[in-house]
Amino acid sequence: VTEAELLKLISTLPQPASAQLIRGIGDDAAIWRPKPGEDLVFTTDFLIEGVHFTVPPYSPADIGHKLLARGLSDIAAMGAEPRFCLLSLALSPAAGPRWVKAFYTGLFNLASRYNVALAGGDLSHTDKIASDIVVCGAVPRSKALRRDTAKPGDAIYVSAPLGRDWSRYRRPEPRIELGLQLRETATAAMDVTDGLALDLHRLCEASDVSAELTNIPVRRGATQDQALYGGEDYELLWTAPPQAAEPRGAIRIGTVAKGRRDRVALNAVPVPAKGYDHFNK
Amino acid sequence: VTEAELLKLISTLPQPASAQLIRGIGDDAAIWRPKPGEDLVFTTDFLIEGVHFTVPPYSPADIGHKLLARGLSDIAAMGAEPRFCLLSLALSPAAGPRWVKAFYTGLFNLASRYNVALAGGDLSHTDKIASDIVVCGAVPRSKALRRDTAKPGDAIYVSAPLGRDWSRYRRPEPRIELGLQLRETATAAMDVTDGLALDLHRLCEASDVSAELTNIPVRRGATQDQALYGGEDYELLWTAPPQAAEPRGAIRIGTVAKGRRDRVALNAVPVPAKGYDHFNK
Repeated sequence: VTEAELLKLISTLPQPASAQLIRGIGDDAAIWRPKPGEDLVFTTDFLIEGVHFTVPPYSPADIGHKLLARGLSDIAAMGAEPRFCLLSLALSPAAGPRWVKAFYTGLFNLASRYNVALAGGDLSHTDKIASDIVVCGAVPRSKALRRDTAKPGDAIYVSAPLGRDWSRYRRPEPRIELGLQLRETATAAMDVTDGLALDLHRLCEASDVSAELTNIPVRRGATQDQALYGGEDYELLWTAPPQAAEPRGAIRIGTVAKGRRDRVALNAVPVPAKGYDHFNK
Repeated sequence: VTEAELLKLISTLPQPASAQLIRGIGDDAAIWRPKPGEDLVFTTDFLIEGVHFTVPPYSPADIGHKLLARGLSDIAAMGAEPRFCLLSLALSPAAGPRWVKAFYTGLFNLASRYNVALAGGDLSHTDKIASDIVVCGAVPRSKALRRDTAKPGDAIYVSAPLGRDWSRYRRPEPRIELGLQLRETATAAMDVTDGLALDLHRLCEASDVSAELTNIPVRRGATQDQALYGGEDYELLWTAPPQAAEPRGAIRIGTVAKGRRDRVALNAVPVPAKGYDHFNK
């Protein structure tokens, strides 16, 4: 199979279009026309065979879904609306046209729900499947939700009980609508991917504050340790003034305090900054 | 070594900044503020160990340089000014902090010459080094050079004699300045990476025209076959009205004719659409 044949196969699959995409796949680069008054946000995420997934239990459609979902979860955490993506895919000898079709179908199904156009990418080959996605989102100027802007006195929230859930792990659901809502009230936000403990440490360090937790919401069937250190939740973690209206489903877990040595504590007991780190397992 | 330690190492290396980059590495996504009246162009390129390079002969600095240069060559082919990049890097066990430092130094040295800010990325690990870069460029609205806009009667040009050159292969020089100049005169453009024969076929197919070549400029020490089918030239290929001013160094190689079955011919002999294809070697 040639690259041209693979591109043709991909082009025949149903996928979202966009009037802002002046030229998509087929040139040296994609041409994108920004809307006036918007900031753009960009995130990129790897999904590599043997590192982030194995086949089975992941199906090709799961991998396509999860790759885009990871990027969209970052876009949600910025309070942005997703706009387009670029996909780099290196195929192993085991991944033929059927695999490619299923993979792109999984990706396009999710892309269609949020109107994310595939603007371009790169196809290559390798021993083990490696995919890398870039997702671009847009937000009114200066309205992006950052993680370095939490303030002492803010309440701390998560979007759902935490702890590993296989179906969510395999097919994460990005919290796009919630991210858009949070633009009105949140002072800082991020997504929980490496575990609440580690990610909250990062937010506190970026904002130079500390977190006093009083409550860890644990998903049914999971343990508190999994909720704190497990990762791959793809939920949102945010801070907001305590008097601000709370979005539906928001779970308050504590309060932001001034910066100090114990960055994160649960009922006055320090919570270590441990969780998922690719380079330190 | 932890991801945080690697990020700290990278942040200490000299690198270009940008006032348009509202927030770079350290959040869920980078925040970029477009300038009014500009279109943005986006390209993404893999560079994978064992596929695109081996170590040796490539040094880590060569790999960092080449990865960005491949992206910049696409930006040049669009007639755009490079603005920022996002880098995804999966490290093998053999690539420690020293490797990482040399790799980013090679990348930042080239980035500094064109003021390309590193806006974000993803770090991971794997068996063999895999890197993927996204480069964003900007161009005045509707001024991007495409490959589907060549017109019968145009002259066809390349930017230099072709055929493999190890130093250029290892450390490609993107033709950014030439691309900016070509915005004034070229009707279509692309970069030559998979060989003149295959790339010119692509340009002709996209524009629904054919090419009548009269002259293949061959680099000293290379053969005409290498110049036609070798690839990795990273030169520009473009079309322009024959009466338009030619940029310095431009080499006219033929003329655009109407679309027909023999897409590309050299002195009336068909030139096959062969060259470098990842999926058909």
